[in-house]
Amino acid sequence: MPQPIRIALDAMGGDFGPAVTIPGAALALERRPDAQFLLFGDESAIKAELAALPKLAQKARVIHAAVAVRMDDKPSVALRQGRRVSSMWLAIEAVKKGEADAAVSAGNTGALMAMAKVCLKTMAKVDRPALASLWPTLRGQSVVLDVGASIGGGARHLVDLAIMGAAMARTFLNVETPTVGLLNVGVEEIKGVEEVKAASTFLKEQPPPGLRYHGFVEGDSIGKGLVDVVVTEGFSGNIALKTAEGTAAQVAAYLRAALNGSLAARIGLFLAYPLLRRAFRELRAKTDPRNVNGAVFLGLEGVVIKSHGGADRVGFARAVEIAYEMARNELQSNLRNALAVAHADEPALPEEMHQ
Amino acid sequence: MPQPIRIALDAMGGDFGPAVTIPGAALALERRPDAQFLLFGDESAIKAELAALPKLAQKARVIHAAVAVRMDDKPSVALRQGRRVSSMWLAIEAVKKGEADAAVSAGNTGALMAMAKVCLKTMAKVDRPALASLWPTLRGQSVVLDVGASIGGGARHLVDLAIMGAAMARTFLNVETPTVGLLNVGVEEIKGVEEVKAASTFLKEQPPPGLRYHGFVEGDSIGKGLVDVVVTEGFSGNIALKTAEGTAAQVAAYLRAALNGSLAARIGLFLAYPLLRRAFRELRAKTDPRNVNGAVFLGLEGVVIKSHGGADRVGFARAVEIAYEMARNELQSNLRNALAVAHADEPALPEEMHQ
Repeated sequence: MPQPIRIALDAMGGDFGPAVTIPGAALALERRPDAQFLLFGDESAIKAELAALPKLAQKARVIHAAVAVRMDDKPSVALRQGRRVSSMWLAIEAVKKGEADAAVSAGNTGALMAMAKVCLKTMAKVDRPALASLWPTLRGQSVVLDVGASIGGGARHLVDLAIMGAAMARTFLNVETPTVGLLNVGVEEIKGVEEVKAASTFLKEQPPPGLRYHGFVEGDSIGKGLVDVVVTEGFSGNIALKTAEGTAAQVAAYLRAALNGSLAARIGLFLAYPLLRRAFRELRAKTDPRNVNGAVFLGLEGVVIKSHGGADRVGFARAVEIAYEMARNELQSNLRNALAVAHADEPALPEEMHQ
Repeated sequence: MPQPIRIALDAMGGDFGPAVTIPGAALALERRPDAQFLLFGDESAIKAELAALPKLAQKARVIHAAVAVRMDDKPSVALRQGRRVSSMWLAIEAVKKGEADAAVSAGNTGALMAMAKVCLKTMAKVDRPALASLWPTLRGQSVVLDVGASIGGGARHLVDLAIMGAAMARTFLNVETPTVGLLNVGVEEIKGVEEVKAASTFLKEQPPPGLRYHGFVEGDSIGKGLVDVVVTEGFSGNIALKTAEGTAAQVAAYLRAALNGSLAARIGLFLAYPLLRRAFRELRAKTDPRNVNGAVFLGLEGVVIKSHGGADRVGFARAVEIAYEMARNELQSNLRNALAVAHADEPALPEEMHQ
């Protein structure tokens, strides 16, 4: 029998804290019965939630944390006030100590990133970690990174993103040799910024093992699932992700408005309701952002998952499941191997270059 | 009676050339009966299309052009081979000579941009022109720029984009004092790149007349219509635009799949069809990219509109109508005034800085 997967939760993170994170963990446990939980945060608030969830209570240990990082804390403030004492820090530290296989937080991204970097450190050969998102596509899912861990970056950073994204796709999407595209403003060779062009040339001429470089892709190719991994730096990646979320919500709003618009349409819908229900349920499942909640930090010495701050129980459970899968399928050793092979002929980065 | 609006068309541009541009012009003429057309391109191909469109033929003059810029020509090649002889160049030149009030092309963006800059020159005080898109939102439409005319740019460029975008919103969206947001990866002060932060500080402390600066906005705010004008540099703007187009297409594909998925759903749809038809037609109209086709070059000494290369007759007609409206509502003098007021205390840029 495989080892159980131990997940450390920042129970206080997100807009709702334990009222969402604890029921979310319970839901994830239903689907991943061999998970175990370390719950960090305000002991009485967590235990109040656990009282109604005996199955989770059995598989969980509560560790009191006196401090909760606020959603609007600057990273520097969060680090100063929350280091070693906040629920966020302690959840990450449990991974560092080997007491947990992955940490999950819905807390603020900047603080989580800063604490994870300070506590876990980046992997050898990685200068800056990345935040990778699982993006629903017409073909299934793709890995898109970086969606906001760091801004900008040169060609080498983009190549590392390609290597790490491919390792994540191998771990999670079950593709042996993932295809990788570089996000650009046009597919012609003449376009784009210098770093993106240089990274493309490198990936073409010296393709790292374990991935197939496709070339440039444009924003509209992401949703088509043209490639398994879409690589871009954090500013444009975050804007792409948020814009896609906004557009999906917008189209859903149009649909609701169109269906509520006329009495006739409403009567028609009512008549056809039992028959249409399944179709709309499928549509909703496909476009429900809760089903893809959970972005993965790549390049750290430990698995850390970032849930949306506004996620509800269902969304948070999904982030916990992603943490489970990443640990179960050994994301870390996949990443380490991929980076080691790709950078085999380079000297290790000096310690001070690990920002 | 107002003067007729004279529109110069690059009849050869786009994936389909005269087969789309000429019927597109005819459709636009139905809606804007006081438009007149100069049609540049292969005379016999244009006349063959015009034969079936007597109303357009009456309002149009055909000017033969020996060269058509190809969709995959590099801008430098297009300029070398097409300067003074291509349909694209001649359409732009008609604006320069005052023979037309606006030019429309579905030809390749890079070539159009290069030719427009060389032929028309940029306005005084503008170092780089921008490409602005009309973005459908839940509140109506917003202006988003730059969607790909130039990559990167400092704080001053972003402030100019804000000023030009606001002038376009005043011209086209009928808002006296448009709200302007800077696209960023988070709404907190701490995030983003240096240029974006510097532009934000400037817009807050010395707001140019005629716009209300809102602050940072994220990608998911564009579709909500949170602000009238969304400003970002061309790389991220192009990625946001394409990603939104891709996501809208993706949701539409999900919807079709959901509705075609089961026999039961199909029967239900068939039963309810007459009643649902109007609702779906509304939805389609809202999400049909053809209804927002036509991006506007801002900052040039003349109105140039870029249509999608793949646009059909309906889409191309929309781009022609945007050209009409921009000319009719005096985009150019609005832009000139806004820039003059904003840069009143600066010396003019030396000629060589107009790239």
